[in-house]
Amino acid sequence: MPEAPLKPAPLLTTKQVATIPELTLACGERLREVTVGFETYGRLNEARDNAVLICHFFSGHSHAAGRYAPDDQELGWWDAVIGPGKAIDTERYFVVSIDALGCVRTDAPHGVTTSAASIDPATGEPYGPAFPALAMADAVAAQRHVLTQLGVERLAAVAGPSLGAMQALEWAVSRPGEVDRVIASIGLAEFQPREIGLYRVMMDAIRLDPRFKDGRYDRADPPIEGLAASIKLMLLLSSGREALHESFGRAFADAECDPRLDRSAEWQVEAWLETEGRRRAALCDANAWIAMLRANMRWDLAHRYGSLAQAFARLKARVLLIPGEGDELAHLPSYHLPMVQALEEAGADYAVAPLPPKRGHLAGLSDIGLAADAIRACLETPLRA
Amino acid sequence: MPEAPLKPAPLLTTKQVATIPELTLACGERLREVTVGFETYGRLNEARDNAVLICHFFSGHSHAAGRYAPDDQELGWWDAVIGPGKAIDTERYFVVSIDALGCVRTDAPHGVTTSAASIDPATGEPYGPAFPALAMADAVAAQRHVLTQLGVERLAAVAGPSLGAMQALEWAVSRPGEVDRVIASIGLAEFQPREIGLYRVMMDAIRLDPRFKDGRYDRADPPIEGLAASIKLMLLLSSGREALHESFGRAFADAECDPRLDRSAEWQVEAWLETEGRRRAALCDANAWIAMLRANMRWDLAHRYGSLAQAFARLKARVLLIPGEGDELAHLPSYHLPMVQALEEAGADYAVAPLPPKRGHLAGLSDIGLAADAIRACLETPLRA
Repeated sequence: MPEAPLKPAPLLTTKQVATIPELTLACGERLREVTVGFETYGRLNEARDNAVLICHFFSGHSHAAGRYAPDDQELGWWDAVIGPGKAIDTERYFVVSIDALGCVRTDAPHGVTTSAASIDPATGEPYGPAFPALAMADAVAAQRHVLTQLGVERLAAVAGPSLGAMQALEWAVSRPGEVDRVIASIGLAEFQPREIGLYRVMMDAIRLDPRFKDGRYDRADPPIEGLAASIKLMLLLSSGREALHESFGRAFADAECDPRLDRSAEWQVEAWLETEGRRRAALCDANAWIAMLRANMRWDLAHRYGSLAQAFARLKARVLLIPGEGDELAHLPSYHLPMVQALEEAGADYAVAPLPPKRGHLAGLSDIGLAADAIRACLETPLRA
Repeated sequence: MPEAPLKPAPLLTTKQVATIPELTLACGERLREVTVGFETYGRLNEARDNAVLICHFFSGHSHAAGRYAPDDQELGWWDAVIGPGKAIDTERYFVVSIDALGCVRTDAPHGVTTSAASIDPATGEPYGPAFPALAMADAVAAQRHVLTQLGVERLAAVAGPSLGAMQALEWAVSRPGEVDRVIASIGLAEFQPREIGLYRVMMDAIRLDPRFKDGRYDRADPPIEGLAASIKLMLLLSSGREALHESFGRAFADAECDPRLDRSAEWQVEAWLETEGRRRAALCDANAWIAMLRANMRWDLAHRYGSLAQAFARLKARVLLIPGEGDELAHLPSYHLPMVQALEEAGADYAVAPLPPKRGHLAGLSDIGLAADAIRACLETPLRA
């Protein structure tokens, strides 16, 4: 009888919290007593040259891989490519996943990072709508502090999907001497008017909720419905037409109740949106959500350098782009192709590994395993001299 | 000195109103004292075989061509192709543009058609949220009544963009003996989950407005902000990425106020959305908007016939499809290509005249002049024997 193949031990992790006494933001304001959640997988080697930073997406947090307990059903969101023997091999790399400053998650025990939902030490009240204007550079600055506390100076790679890709690009362009590789999935280098407008409508939905009260809401009675509507729109724009069509078609929410004839009946996709919207809204804070929407709307990598090609000319890192072919947010012709053109102009060392169209933007999360070989090649092929 | 070319006299029109004493809807409910707005351009000939029906888009009404007064700045929305000597030549055709039942417009003097905003003769109060479930077939039934009152039995063509295309397709498939040609621009034959979901979010935005009061709002204090948010989303999804990018880029709403640094500053596209959203919301009724969103979500031409090919097998009309190549609502691969495939399977007499991608869905309105030759050919080439 053949032996069963050895199953690697499950990757276990815990949420850790770093503290930064004071952080000056790109907008000029300062935050005091900043906390930043992070997780690590694997170990820093003696040469301290095996650290990989992972950055999370909009509604996520730093639980990128593994489980908190052996019987956890939920795995970290990039577990397909992070772990022992996987593309980002935790036997080989010291993987550090760090929250973005302003992280929208407030659910225990995941929501530990300073955001608009946090208590302002100066007032003893939540920052709320007074939270300063966040930039991608602020997430990077906070991550830099955490990495220094962990003894990491240089990154073998920085990687992430969506908002995580924006942070990774900001890292590699603004701190070129510290990053050897960038792995940017479903990423974009700026926000264009369509997405600025859509994010504005997501803000409007929250503000319309009578519980919002200009952001000074009762923490025990937050604007869940407005936040849920905002989340529904994000879900619809990121889920991919084909995946939505395959999952829901024109099925009714209640098989007995035909929405063609009954004006109170709904379609199945509506019931799903309602459930998911409310479930996810309960994990987040509305002011933090708005502040993070604004941080995205501000994103413009080229701005400080004159052009995207000039920004990329600063790179000392190899770049791997992992776009989604059906992505309606980081739309290929609008966002991805200009990045490729600018990398080409800048003479950068780059590769592209597209994901299939079906799952839209979310392919960068759910289909990331399809890019495993490309990620491995990016990490393991020797860098240009 | 060469003579100036003769300028044709401006096409002048007036809004007319037809009355239908009672109309039984597809859902089984009845409406009494139905009013339907319409406009006509040109004259019915003696043979009564030159009538062309025009159907309007979601937020429009039957003002498809010409002006109400010689000094009007605003022209009808398809004036580029309807008028003396134009593709739909009013010297030759009797063009009748008829409101869709449930038309969202309530602004004087345009908003004259029965909708959720109308007074229910049984109660003396607006129907509001109690307005029956509308179907595309109901718009067609009401238009049939109006045409009969005008002495029109058979249509040389029925044409329209977006919601107008859905009505045109419903006409040609459900009343095949009465329609010789269908001109469907930016049309679709069903609503799929992505669009059902997005329209649901547009409903949510209205319902979140504290002024909405479950649809029993004060007519002097309606939920303008919620309706404006809903309209903003419709505008963003229909305007086209390229057109938005060209119009707004990353310009600031106030050149002195950088939204990258100032958390209260906005982007120009936001200011445009705010202005347009509020302006358009003032022309519409929130309950009528919701009822029309639901009517769209119900749209499924194939349902009654088993498949789209079987629906199209009923056609006795020539079909001209005018899709928008950058259309994110009636998305080409999801909606247009299956229609083409079904027309092919059904052995239909059809042609396709795509519009350029820049203006997205709205190309079907603003760029319709680019399809003038295709429309003329559809109308004037002899039909198959």
